[in-house]
Amino acid sequence: MIIVTEAMCEKIISRSDAFKSVESVFSAMARGDAWNFPVVREAIGYADALYGFKSGFDRAGLSLGVKSGGYWPGNMKKGLTNHQSTIFLFDPDTGQLKALVGGNYLTAIRTAASSSVSIAHLARKDSSVLGMVGAGHQSTFQLQAALEQRAFKKVVAWDIHMDNVSRLRDIAEKNEVEFQAVDREQLGEQADVIITITSAHEPLLMKEWIKPGTHIACMGTDTKGKQELDPELVASASVFTDEIAQSISIGEAQHAVAAGLITAADITAIGDVINAVHQGRSSDKEITLFDGTGVGLQDIAVASVAATLAEERGLAEKVEL
Amino acid sequence: MIIVTEAMCEKIISRSDAFKSVESVFSAMARGDAWNFPVVREAIGYADALYGFKSGFDRAGLSLGVKSGGYWPGNMKKGLTNHQSTIFLFDPDTGQLKALVGGNYLTAIRTAASSSVSIAHLARKDSSVLGMVGAGHQSTFQLQAALEQRAFKKVVAWDIHMDNVSRLRDIAEKNEVEFQAVDREQLGEQADVIITITSAHEPLLMKEWIKPGTHIACMGTDTKGKQELDPELVASASVFTDEIAQSISIGEAQHAVAAGLITAADITAIGDVINAVHQGRSSDKEITLFDGTGVGLQDIAVASVAATLAEERGLAEKVEL
Repeated sequence: MIIVTEAMCEKIISRSDAFKSVESVFSAMARGDAWNFPVVREAIGYADALYGFKSGFDRAGLSLGVKSGGYWPGNMKKGLTNHQSTIFLFDPDTGQLKALVGGNYLTAIRTAASSSVSIAHLARKDSSVLGMVGAGHQSTFQLQAALEQRAFKKVVAWDIHMDNVSRLRDIAEKNEVEFQAVDREQLGEQADVIITITSAHEPLLMKEWIKPGTHIACMGTDTKGKQELDPELVASASVFTDEIAQSISIGEAQHAVAAGLITAADITAIGDVINAVHQGRSSDKEITLFDGTGVGLQDIAVASVAATLAEERGLAEKVEL
Repeated sequence: MIIVTEAMCEKIISRSDAFKSVESVFSAMARGDAWNFPVVREAIGYADALYGFKSGFDRAGLSLGVKSGGYWPGNMKKGLTNHQSTIFLFDPDTGQLKALVGGNYLTAIRTAASSSVSIAHLARKDSSVLGMVGAGHQSTFQLQAALEQRAFKKVVAWDIHMDNVSRLRDIAEKNEVEFQAVDREQLGEQADVIITITSAHEPLLMKEWIKPGTHIACMGTDTKGKQELDPELVASASVFTDEIAQSISIGEAQHAVAAGLITAADITAIGDVINAVHQGRSSDKEITLFDGTGVGLQDIAVASVAATLAEERGLAEKVEL
């Protein structure tokens, strides 16, 4: 059994590794070669914590595992990140524990890879302005990864606490891209691609603010009750997602579905676009929407790459169990 | 984070430690201080494996964790046990991984502790003959633990492969207790306490074979479709269990419930007996039945003790994540 620490993950997993493994597992899911098991998510009634597991098996990549952990809102005060996760990989031939992989950095980078995969496959090639809704910890990973998908010339950003956008400004400047702090209406007016990455519980973007041809990667909504978009905007867009069952129950599409505006049949697995089973964007006027809900197989995929690289490079600590 | 290996668990966890921690967590469950989260159990469609997770939180003992693993039927040929499990403990104050504990030995000893707790609280004090139905790997742990609960003078045993009972004979002899290989009818005639620990899918013991006053710990049935007892026997007994929801769905009681002979309301949590909320056995003529389905909190409880002892004795390997 090997141990792959947080520090090792940061050193060995590149954004390109994360992109390729997430793209490949979305493809396997759509082909029926990989599937996620039921998610366990519990309010434990202590420390206001949410705790649970996301697990799955990729028969194509022979990756079996689970990400465990959750959200501890009091951690920040203790100098720890609120989201805590660890990924466990098992040998699908014997069930023995194969690797223990720190999950905090990988969670950030696989979530960023997810919106990036959607931009690569769904955004207009000539997209030049990137809009960021939300400027928390995770947004920096999202922005950096997205900047590599199109030749963006400008980043426009909004956060409920406008002070936070300075961290996005820093990244834009480092990438020699113009930056502007804007309100949400201005953001919709300018952006060709929008990433929403907030913990909002109400619509932040209204349908009438969004230009034809925009691609929106909606990354914040992963729980019943969370919401980032006007359901009318969701209903007017072509909706793609990582996992349809999650999209309609805990993803952004939950609200448009609950309002009777769309059904599961209106939503396409992004893996079908990757596999060329679905054409993806059909015109320069279409609004495309990626509902990124987050699945265990993404974590397992990037953790498997981390474990393989750490072992190949002789970095991983070996432990007997 | 600490690592507690299989070998360490065997060295530091006594049957008495396992008994005390399982008794205490059954008590906490019945008081509402500890609860199990939904079980994930999946046929992964590879290597005929069943894979999953049992998890829970004990607010009284502040133990939070998960047992992951499953059943790989091809392992035996590779010199590995078919059941593979690992237990992960988390700090309930921060969500950080606290300990990684080998789960194979602990699973055996906590399952044996479970039937022992039922014998301690439900069997007649003057029980002198112990009947064993099933003589597989797990049965040896069951027998050794049970022999410590009453002054048994004799062990009678049956297995579908009668050769197997020699391993039970060895344990009986080591404990200076008479041993007899018997058929199942003879077993019912003689035994005051019976432990069933098989993977049967049909009744092995019929109602008319069992003496008044017998205590039966039914430990083999943990899945829909498995069965060890005549449903009429279950219906005629006073039924106790570790977790009522599991007892009626995947435990031995599933068949009597499906046949309409009993309902969940007829089943008592063993924790209520431990907590003296229920009197347990009411007469020397009553047949008592413990439906041991196996819950994640048992694993978490014994693993927590193992982690604490290993750390106190300076045995546990410390690892940075």
